[in-house]
Amino acid sequence: MGVKLHTLADVCMVPLGTSSASVSDFVALIETRIRQSNLKSTLHSAGTTIEGPWDEVMELIGEVHQYAHDNGYVRIHTEIRCGTRVDKFQTAQDKMDTVNKKIQNLQK
Amino acid sequence: MGVKLHTLADVCMVPLGTSSASVSDFVALIETRIRQSNLKSTLHSAGTTIEGPWDEVMELIGEVHQYAHDNGYVRIHTEIRCGTRVDKFQTAQDKMDTVNKKIQNLQK
Amino acid sequence: MGVKLHTLADVCMVPLGTSSASVSDFVALIETRIRQSNLKSTLHSAGTTIEGPWDEVMELIGEVHQYAHDNGYVRIHTEIRCGTRVDKFQTAQDKMDTVNKKIQNLQK
Amino acid sequence: MGVKLHTLADVCMVPLGTSSASVSDFVALIETRIRQSNLKSTLHSAGTTIEGPWDEVMELIGEVHQYAHDNGYVRIHTEIRCGTRVDKFQTAQDKMDTVNKKIQNLQK
Repeated sequence: MGVKLHTLADVCMVPLGTSSASVSDFVALIETRIRQSNLKSTLHSAGTTIEGPWDEVMELIGEVHQYAHDNGYVRIHTEIRCGTRVDKFQTAQDKMDTVNKKIQNLQK
Repeated sequence: MGVKLHTLADVCMVPLGTSSASVSDFVALIETRIRQSNLKSTLHSAGTTIEGPWDEVMELIGEVHQYAHDNGYVRIHTEIRCGTRVDKFQTAQDKMDTVNKKIQNLQK
Repeated sequence: MGVKLHTLADVCMVPLGTSSASVSDFVALIETRIRQSNLKSTLHSAGTTIEGPWDEVMELIGEVHQYAHDNGYVRIHTEIRCGTRVDKFQTAQDKMDTVNKKIQNLQK
Repeated sequence: MGVKLHTLADVCMVPLGTSSASVSDFVALIETRIRQSNLKSTLHSAGTTIEGPWDEVMELIGEVHQYAHDNGYVRIHTEIRCGTRVDKFQTAQDKMDTVNKKIQNLQK
């Protein structure tokens, strides 16, 4: 796979067809798998943001699907928000820092 | 509007048709508006999670669209991840606490 | 609720904690409920697009959550793509017609 | 990339930082690119559903980002709903057929 564009991908993954409505066991399982990769990620209450080259990020998300299936989850539903830009390089932390600074300026 | 179900709604809002590819001014503007409401919200690098009764949360998101239009943004594109459940009450912080505890257990 | 902005909202709704991984019973149930409203909607393989004033569209989606809970679904996870614009009025069909025409022109 | 799981990925892609609020030129451009691939896709008013092995689908979406950048779009924001399942093979058309049949049964 040849797409090297840097992306920030925010991933929300849920299992379908589990007898319990709780998904925290599932989220703990996949989050542990995500953290075994070399890519930087940040967990929040509605998903995990993964940063890196497009091909590596999307391969990781696919591997996590495979890992969940291997652990007995029959069906996985995922929603990904992802962006690429060619005007500058930006991490998730950069985005937060910029927005937080501008929020402070608006409140002055 | 009569839907009182408690929801956690994770909102990612972007403006279309702005001359700059930067959206941090926009995000700072709408985040400031969101924080003027009575609803609890948490900002992260890919959106904001808003908590409360369905009707109040969705009305707030609509008001933020209107506010952005009033501030000169012609078109707004939003993506919302939202859930409701009737087996128990859960805040965004509750979800994080449960998952973080289970991640620690998996790593033992 | 006072937000009258016209919106196109594309809704993907799934149940969590069902013993079967199949969601077609659920989708048929909620789609039937959506069609009982006065709002125009269009079903596709990854969701349903609902058109109308912001407050009516979001109230309908909340009512569908409530309806699903009333029918025994404990937890619902929904993803909504929605847009508003103030430069012109546009239906889902308008969007399709414009894009299809431009695709034909590119292929000439 | 080695993830061969079959996926249905529904993709909504928008450009940021374009002087016009219209995105139909952009959508026509990327839709034409998507149709040049070997993967089956279906356009609807809120996105395009692409079907195939995980690695090929995600590589195609990345290539479309690259193609849009090559055509002058500085920043691209994409939202993907994607699912995998290991209990059975299902196309987008299969999903529609099953749901439509069940809707008809509910209306009897």
